[in-house]
Amino acid sequence: MPKIVDHGERRTELAEAVCRVIARDGVQEVSVRTVAAEAGWSTGTLRYYFTSRAELLASACALVIERVSARIGELRQTGDIRWTVRAALLETMPLDERRRTEETVAFSFLALGLGDPALAAVQRTHFEAMYRLCRSLIDALGDLNLLADNAIPREAAARRLHAVVDGLALQGLARHLDPKEMTAQLDSYLNDLIVPEN
Amino acid sequence: MPKIVDHGERRTELAEAVCRVIARDGVQEVSVRTVAAEAGWSTGTLRYYFTSRAELLASACALVIERVSARIGELRQTGDIRWTVRAALLETMPLDERRRTEETVAFSFLALGLGDPALAAVQRTHFEAMYRLCRSLIDALGDLNLLADNAIPREAAARRLHAVVDGLALQGLARHLDPKEMTAQLDSYLNDLIVPEN
Repeated sequence: MPKIVDHGERRTELAEAVCRVIARDGVQEVSVRTVAAEAGWSTGTLRYYFTSRAELLASACALVIERVSARIGELRQTGDIRWTVRAALLETMPLDERRRTEETVAFSFLALGLGDPALAAVQRTHFEAMYRLCRSLIDALGDLNLLADNAIPREAAARRLHAVVDGLALQGLARHLDPKEMTAQLDSYLNDLIVPEN
Repeated sequence: MPKIVDHGERRTELAEAVCRVIARDGVQEVSVRTVAAEAGWSTGTLRYYFTSRAELLASACALVIERVSARIGELRQTGDIRWTVRAALLETMPLDERRRTEETVAFSFLALGLGDPALAAVQRTHFEAMYRLCRSLIDALGDLNLLADNAIPREAAARRLHAVVDGLALQGLARHLDPKEMTAQLDSYLNDLIVPEN
């Protein structure tokens, strides 16, 4: 009897292997061969799912966006908006091993990608997802009149939040800031962004 | 008669070759062999100056820091502080091909470096230089009572400025923002940071 194969599950398994290779060895080590070895598959079987390095990298980036979004989606179920905004942004920052791996994957395209339009498109996906998150958080705060500066347009507020969070995440990845410093910087920013509780 | 060799000049020449390889092919392509080919040297001669890939990368990063610092140093000779702050920060952002190459070199270490302490140290040098620049600009503004928010400690103001500038530079490198958008975001931030002219 033929084994029933869950193709979605196998693709996820491979994307996870790509993430592990990036986190451990750097994005330059990702290839059909190294990922097959990491996953314990033959390169022939892997090629049934992904035919190029660009597709492998895209799958890893998509997996990271999906997982971070899922965690943030769960957070939004809870009540307090100030808590939710902070918790959502912290999910995108390299504060522990899991998030460090995710951010390494998300930013690793920067070192490649200049010449390859497929990789450049994958990289843009990540930045657009982060901008949309920032914009949705700013909108949620604005709708409740919780933005300290009422004069700033929401798009500008969202872009600035995005720059701050990306800058802190980058500095965390480079170990210029440690997790405590990243969190303190984010808190200081949110403290000025959001109307104080009374 | 033996040729007189200017060793400093030769090291600079090689560091420039490293920068060209990174900008064109990505940091993963930097090796003693590729840089020798780029510079039109034999690998043997190159090894007289740099014995490892880490040393080559470090030389490229040091060259970028030196050149950006030199340009900023010249700016400071002029009068108006508001203009100087803006111009100094713009020198560190990927707004044209030259600055795009410099920023690509400065950030390309992120994709490597996890396992290599020598590369991690080089990368930290870049972030520390940027923080010191931000701190010196905040100090210059503060000393003239030009910081709009007097309550924020200077270290916190400098760290926030650093996060904003790094975030914008990163988003520019990834082509999430174009040069006009990067400049507009920086101007919007400086507009809130600095006391308006009267």
